Amino acid sequence: MAIHELTGPPHRLWSTTHEPAITVADGDSVRFFIQEALGGQFDALNTGDSVPDLDWDAVYPMAGPILVADAEPGDVLEIEVLDVTPIDWGWTAIVPGLGLLAADFPESAFHRWDLSSGRHADFKGAARIPIRPFLGVMGVCPDVVEPQPVLPPGHFGGNLDCRDLVAGSKLYLPVQTPGARLALADSHAAQGDGEVCVSAIEASAHGEVRLRLHKGRTISGPQLRTPGPLRAGLEDAGWYATTGVGPDLMAAAQDAVRAMIDHLGREYGLGPVDAYLLCSVAVDLKVTEVVDAPNWVVGAYLPVGIMTG
Amino acid sequence: MAIHELTGPPHRLWSTTHEPAITVADGDSVRFFIQEALGGQFDALNTGDSVPDLDWDAVYPMAGPILVADAEPGDVLEIEVLDVTPIDWGWTAIVPGLGLLAADFPESAFHRWDLSSGRHADFKGAARIPIRPFLGVMGVCPDVVEPQPVLPPGHFGGNLDCRDLVAGSKLYLPVQTPGARLALADSHAAQGDGEVCVSAIEASAHGEVRLRLHKGRTISGPQLRTPGPLRAGLEDAGWYATTGVGPDLMAAAQDAVRAMIDHLGREYGLGPVDAYLLCSVAVDLKVTEVVDAPNWVVGAYLPVGIMTG
Repeated sequence: MAIHELTGPPHRLWSTTHEPAITVADGDSVRFFIQEALGGQFDALNTGDSVPDLDWDAVYPMAGPILVADAEPGDVLEIEVLDVTPIDWGWTAIVPGLGLLAADFPESAFHRWDLSSGRHADFKGAARIPIRPFLGVMGVCPDVVEPQPVLPPGHFGGNLDCRDLVAGSKLYLPVQTPGARLALADSHAAQGDGEVCVSAIEASAHGEVRLRLHKGRTISGPQLRTPGPLRAGLEDAGWYATTGVGPDLMAAAQDAVRAMIDHLGREYGLGPVDAYLLCSVAVDLKVTEVVDAPNWVVGAYLPVGIMTG
Repeated sequence: MAIHELTGPPHRLWSTTHEPAITVADGDSVRFFIQEALGGQFDALNTGDSVPDLDWDAVYPMAGPILVADAEPGDVLEIEVLDVTPIDWGWTAIVPGLGLLAADFPESAFHRWDLSSGRHADFKGAARIPIRPFLGVMGVCPDVVEPQPVLPPGHFGGNLDCRDLVAGSKLYLPVQTPGARLALADSHAAQGDGEVCVSAIEASAHGEVRLRLHKGRTISGPQLRTPGPLRAGLEDAGWYATTGVGPDLMAAAQDAVRAMIDHLGREYGLGPVDAYLLCSVAVDLKVTEVVDAPNWVVGAYLPVGIMTG
C-alpha cells in the first residue's frame, strides 16, 4: 500500500502512447498537483492584468498517465478520492461558443474567486458558495488509435464534471486498455449540476486518490458512491427552482436556466452575466419527469441559503 | 381566509368550459380528496382480484376547477401545499408503451404498496421507501380551444410530477385564463426524479392547499420553493450512482437507468422488472454536465440507505 508522488509533464490528449508517469499496485495511493483546466492562462486574473486570447492547445493539462499493474480491459478501476485541496484563488468564465446558453451569451466574462478561507467563496457580496472541491476529469484511457481531446467525456470517464466526487467518494471506471492509464485533471472548488456556463470554480489543487482494482467486474460506464448526503450544509434554507417544460430535454434545460437567470435578476438584482456565472457554480439541474409524453420537465435548483445579497 | 371543501365530480381534460367546482379568494385554503391517477381501476390490486384492461378515458380524474377571484392572465398563482395524506395502500405499474424504457419492458407489471405505517413502504423485503406525499398534477387551465389531455405538462404546470412539492412547499404558476381554473390530481406517496417507469407510488389522498394571488408578477413557467432539504432522512447512508454519457440527454438518461437496473440486480438480487419499479419510486435523475460537447452526462442516483435486502 505505497503512497506515490505523481510528477512529470502534463499531457493533453487521450492516447495510449504517452509515457507512463508512474506505475502503481492495487491499493496504492497517489498524491498529485493538478493545474487548472486552462493550464495557467488565466493567471493574469489574479494579478489584475488583462486576460490573453485563449490558447486551446494548452487546455486540460492531465496528470499521469498512471499505470495500474495487472489492470486489463474487463476490470473495474476504483478511484477513492482522499483529498482535493484547491489553491487560494480560482476563476469562472463565460467562453464564447461554449456553454448551455452559448447563443444568449456571445461575450466573454470572467470572475476571480478568493478561496483563501478554505470554506466559502464570496460572489460579489450577493452569494457565498461553499467550497466542495473535486476533479472534473478522472478517466482511464479510451482504446483509441487517434489521440482524442479531453473535453468530451465517455464511458471511460474523463471529463464527467460530476460535483459529487468530493473527498470520501469513490468513482468506478471500466478499464479500456492494459494498465488502465488513469489520468487526472480539471480541479474544481465548487460546481452546480450541469456546469451550465462551461466552467466551475476552476482552481489548481493538490490532493490524493487511492486506487483499487476489481478484477472481472463489468460495468458499462462510470459509476460512483458517495459516503453521505450530497448537499449537506448547502440546503438547510431550502431551494428555489425554475423549470423548463417541453419535448426536448436540452431545450428544457436551457429554459430552466433562463428562468433562473430572470429570477436571480428580479429577486437579487444580479445582471444576466453574473446570474449565469452563479448558476454554473451553484445551481443544480435535475430531471423532474421524463415520461409524461410528449413533454418532459427539467428543474434548475438554487440553494437559497447561499444568497447573501 | 376561508377554508373550503372541494367537492363535485372530477374532470379529465384541460378545458375552460368545465363548470367551476368552487370560487375562492386570495389567501383562502381548499381541502380536497384526490382519487389516484387511474380513477380506481387498480382497486382490484388491493383485493387480490385480477387487474382489468385499462380504460384510458378514466385516467387522471382532476379535482376542481377552482376559480380564484380576480385572477387574470399575467398574474401568478401560488399554491402552498399544507397537507397531502395518502390512503393506506398504493400501486406502481409498468404500462406497455409508456415509460423511459418502454422498449425494454414490453409487459405489464404491478406492485401493491402497504402505506399503513404512514412513514415507510416496504418493497418486497428489499427496500424501504420513505413516504413523501405530493400531487403529481397541479395546474392552472391552459388557454385552449380544444380540450387537452392531462398527461403532458406545460408552462401552465399540470402533470409536472415534481417530487419536491411535499407539504411546506409552494408552487408558482403563470395564470393563463380568467379565474386561473386550478385543478389538482395524481396524488403520489413517493417518487424518484424522472418517474422512469411512468408511475410513482400512486395512492388516493386527502389534503389541503392555500392559494395566493400575485398580481402583475410575470413568470414563463412553473417555479417552486421548498422550505428545507429535498431528501432529508433519505440520504444519510450516501448514494450509489450510475451514469449515461453521450450526445443525447434522453439516451443518456436511458443508459443511466439501465445501468442502475443492472446494479440493483447484481448487488441486491432484484430482477429487472422489480429494479425498474424501484427506480421509478426512489432513484433520482440529474444532469451532471451539459456543456462538455458533444457528450453530456446524466446520473441515476440511488439513496443507498433505503436498501434493506
